[in-house]
Formats: sequence, structure tokens, C-alpha cells
Amino acid sequence: MLIGAIEAGGTKFVCAVGDESGDIIAKTSFPTKDPEETFKDVNNFFREYKVEAIGIGCFGPVDLDKKSDTYGTILNTPKTKWIQYDVLGKLKKDLKVPVYIDTDVNAAALAEYKYGAGRDVNSCMYITVGTGIGAGYVQDGNTYVGKSHPEMGHVLIQQHENDAFPGGCPYHGNCLEGLASGPAIEKRYGKKGHQLAADSHVWELEAYYLAQAIMNYFLILAPERIILGGGVMKQQQLYPLIRRKFLEMMNGYLTIENADTFIVAPELNDEQGVRGAMALVPVMLRN
Amino acid sequence: MLIGAIEAGGTKFVCAVGDESGDIIAKTSFPTKDPEETFKDVNNFFREYKVEAIGIGCFGPVDLDKKSDTYGTILNTPKTKWIQYDVLGKLKKDLKVPVYIDTDVNAAALAEYKYGAGRDVNSCMYITVGTGIGAGYVQDGNTYVGKSHPEMGHVLIQQHENDAFPGGCPYHGNCLEGLASGPAIEKRYGKKGHQLAADSHVWELEAYYLAQAIMNYFLILAPERIILGGGVMKQQQLYPLIRRKFLEMMNGYLTIENADTFIVAPELNDEQGVRGAMALVPVMLRN
Ligand SMILES: Nc1ncnc2c1ncn2[C@@H]1O[C@H](COP(=O)(O)OP(=O)(O)O)[C@@H](O)[C@H]1O
Ligand SMILES: Nc1ncnc2c1ncn2[C@@H]1O[C@H](COP(=O)(O)OP(=O)(O)O)[C@@H](O)[C@H]1O
Ligand SMILES: [Zn+2]
Ligand SMILES: [Zn+2]
Repeated sequence: MLIGAIEAGGTKFVCAVGDESGDIIAKTSFPTKDPEETFKDVNNFFREYKVEAIGIGCFGPVDLDKKSDTYGTILNTPKTKWIQYDVLGKLKKDLKVPVYIDTDVNAAALAEYKYGAGRDVNSCMYITVGTGIGAGYVQDGNTYVGKSHPEMGHVLIQQHENDAFPGGCPYHGNCLEGLASGPAIEKRYGKKGHQLAADSHVWELEAYYLAQAIMNYFLILAPERIILGGGVMKQQQLYPLIRRKFLEMMNGYLTIENADTFIVAPELNDEQGVRGAMALVPVMLRN
Repeated sequence: MLIGAIEAGGTKFVCAVGDESGDIIAKTSFPTKDPEETFKDVNNFFREYKVEAIGIGCFGPVDLDKKSDTYGTILNTPKTKWIQYDVLGKLKKDLKVPVYIDTDVNAAALAEYKYGAGRDVNSCMYITVGTGIGAGYVQDGNTYVGKSHPEMGHVLIQQHENDAFPGGCPYHGNCLEGLASGPAIEKRYGKKGHQLAADSHVWELEAYYLAQAIMNYFLILAPERIILGGGVMKQQQLYPLIRRKFLEMMNGYLTIENADTFIVAPELNDEQGVRGAMALVPVMLRN
């Protein structure tokens, strides 16, 4: 069975063709433009392959409430041309095959669960710390979707008393994305993350915020593993800092067998998005 | 089919017998003593009925990791005689029927989902605000359990700048249970909650803490409804306060169709625990 996969990101689209085992046969990528132009590129790529189904991990927020009239449609987004765009309907109409849609971060979590840093556990979260902060969750091979899809990047956290930065989220003063995303770091210090690599207090603060959110994810979802990826996590020194702060905050309340295997780096080198989109197809066919 | 149900609480046990429809035929309750004595009372009650299966909603923390050697055993608890007590094994051995165990709060959430304030939605959380704070979650008729069971009452929240109370949780300075449980209110003000009914700032602060936690639950789990019960929620004025603060904090980020039907009171008048324990049996037989 030939399967199509789309990683639909805010800045670029990745399209691929592969099989149920997850192996990629062909792949392309192009910048995200307005919807009509972007789907012209999508159609051009898939024209050459007889795919029988398509999985798409989509930037959001996207309506994933199956009972909703606008299921598969983009909701509010700063990319105004995409607002209310029916991604699912468009793909079904053009490509005339079943299409399975989920969030970009759920797709990434699924790929790491099947092929990467989560392949030996029953449940894992994938958190991306980049331009935004988002998280996906997979348990027993299924991605988690609630009434709508979760927006875990906007959880409220406690701001550090020495941090006077007002936060970069237009909605919330002290949400994780507003305080700890790549752009938040840049706005707070006037330099990009990779230029601040030597400033240890930058990463202490970053770890403090991420550890708080991870503690709440852990207390609410109890995943077996947490995988942290995205541009900001290229600062490898963050991993041990986050583990240490997480353990300090938990303060022995629940037993964490091994923090080194609980909070880890991804293993799929930026391919988790498209491989996860491909993996959505067998998962959704099974359910 | 005759089904047995046990609501195993820290202060009292409720035992009941009923059928798959959830109707209760007989019910009793007695104080929680040490394990051996308590299960003598349990056995005495069930001796008279030919139950074919038993559901139990158990106080915790209880090991709910099916891969664990100690599945169904009580973990760390202030009730030291219960530590490492194998509740599941004991019941199976004495009553010789299949036993299905879950947390007390998951059982309560299941009962409200099937028969109470959640019967018209696909997913709901039940949060109890009493001596402790705990929450259970049901989606599509199944209770949610992660690697271990979640401990949602201990999520971290931001302490109010005017609140100097150090928090009542022995593990965490600023967790929800430590700042907003019944005993936290009592320690902060030197009076029990029901004696403070007229002090509006007490309930403003309480609502501020609960709304923060609810926002995080909502962003992580995206439940369709949140049901708030327990002794402290007898202060009816809390419901509108919590709704208002929740909406203020969300600040329009996601659409909440109707806060009045999103955050609600329970409907089962303290019977959610035992009715939920009974409802565990058909749910677990189905899976
Ligand atoms: N080496 C690095 N150290 C710290 N921050 C980085 C590094 N590389 C990229 N970033 C930051 O990560 C963000 C981009 O995240 P990325 O995951 O690459 O993309 P996106 O989230 O847009 O998909 C930017 O804010 C950038 O400054
Ligand atoms: N009317 C009330 N107003 C405020 N707080 C109350 C009220 N009734 C009970 N409480 C508080 O709720 C807590 C008991 O919660 P409850 O849910 O009844 O029991 P438990 O959590 O032990 O099962 C106590 O701390 C008590 O002070
Ligand atoms: Zn935000
Ligand atoms: Zn705590």
C-alpha cells in the first residue's frame, strides 16, 4: 500500500510517499504560501504516485472535533489567509483518497513512539520548543485528541521573581510559550538563543520554565517518557538542567525511576513530522 | 448479572450491590480501619450476595500500572498500615470473582459521565475539592490512566502576590492541593471553610487557584466538561467566580462555547463514588 504524508508547517510543507512500514520512497518540501498556491505544489508532488491514503500533521490550531461541521479546518492563526481554510476537504477533493488529519505535534509524537526515542515505552509526549511551544501525546499507539486538540504550549506557569520580561504571548502573561519559546528568549535578551549559548543563567531560567510545565504534564497525563525537541533544545545543556529542576520540584512526591530516560532528546532528526504523518494512516485505519 | 462495588475512601468505605444498569440493590458503609479489619467488614457485606464481578474506586496513590508487579497495591500514604497493601489481590482471593480497580476520582468521573452531570458529553473531568484535591477523567466511556495514575491535585500554580500562606503540601510549595484544599483554607485563615462563607476575598482567592488549574487541565486534556465537587464546592458562589476567572485567564485564546455548561456542579449527591465503582465493571469487561 502506497501512503502519502504531509507535514504541514507554518513555514514549510514536507510531502512524502512511503509504505506501511514507514519507509520513505520519495520526499519534497517547499515554503508555505497562501492555501491555493501551497496545495498546487502538494498536488504536483502527489500526481506522480498512486497513494491509497494520506496522513497529514497540520499546524494549528486546527479543528479536530469529529462532531464539528468544520472538522479539519484551520481556526484562528496569525497566517490570516489560512483562517477557516478546509485543509481536510481540499485534500479529499483533489486527491480522492481517505485523508487522516492530526496536529503536527501529535504526528511527531507518533513517529518518535513508533520509530524513535519512544519506541520502547507505552506512552510518550513530544514537546517542541521552537518558534512556538507545542506538545503531542501518544498512548498505546494512539494520538491523544480531546474535545478539541490540546494546546499544551499555553499552560500557565509561575514566572521567576527575577524575570521581569512581560511574556511574548498576545493572550497570556505567564504562559509557557510566552516565556520560553525561541522568540521569547530573543525578545528578553535582545539576542537569539544560539548567540546566548555561553550565558548559563539564560538556560537556568529556560529550564525552570520547562520543568514546571513538564511537572504539570506529568501529573495530569502520566506519560512514560517526555521527548523534547525543536530549535531551542539544540542547547544540549538544557536536558540535565531540566531533569534536575523537575526532580527538585517533584520533591520525591512520586517515584521517577530514572530521570535520564524519562526526559530525553528526539531521535528522528527533524523527520518526525513527516514520518508521523505517514504513521497516522495505519493507526486511523485500525480504529 | 449481580455486580459488587466498593468506594474505598480514606475515612470510609461504601459497599454496594447492583446490576449493569447501575441500579443499587443494597448498600452499606463503615469507617476505614486497618486493612484486615476493613476487609472483614467488606467480606461480611458481600457474603450475602452472589456477585459475579467487583469494581473498586480506591483512595491512593494506588499502583495502576498493569505491567507492574505491584498492580492494585497502595503506594505511599499517610495511612501507614495501608502502605504496600495489595487491595486487588486481597479482594480476588476472598471473593473469588474478577475485580476491576481504578482511582476513587476516576470512578466518580465515570459515574457523572454515565448518569450525572456529564451524561450528554463525550468527555468530562471530575475534580474533588475537599480534604485533598484530586481529579479523574473519562473520555468516550473510558477512564484515563497513564503510566501510573495521574495526580492532578498537585499541579503547580502561581501563588497570588497577596497570599503569604506557605502552602499545606509537604512536597510542594505552590501546588493546588497545598493552596486550595479544605485544610489549606483552614490553616490560612484559622477557620473552617463553612465559617468563612461571608468573606468574599476567601472565595476570590480560592477561585483564582482553581481557575488556573482548570485552565491547565483544559489546555492539556481538552475535556468537554469540568465537574467540580467535594466539601469546599458546597460554597455555591465559587462556580460563577471560577468561570469568570477561567475566561479572564484564557483571554479569548480558544473558544469556550458556554462557560456555564463547561464548569458545573456534580449531580449524583455523593453517590458518584460507589456508582462509578459499579460502572467500572462493564467498562473493563468491554475493553
Ligand atoms: N542552536 C540554537 N540555540 C537556541 N535557540 C535556537 C537554536 N537554533 C534555533 N533556535 C531557536 O529556535 C526557534 C526556531 O525553532 P525551530 O524548531 O527550528 O522552528 P519552528 O518552531 O519554527 O518549526 C527560533 O526562535 C530560534 O532562535
Ligand atoms: N460548606 C462548606 N464550605 C467550605 N468548606 C467545606 C464545607 N463543607 C466541608 N468543607 C471542607 O471540605 C473538606 C472535606 O471535604 P469532603 O469532600 O467533604 O471530604 P473528603 O475530601 O475527606 O472526602 C474539609 O476541609 C471541610 O472543611
Ligand atoms: Zn499563551
Ligand atoms: Zn503537592
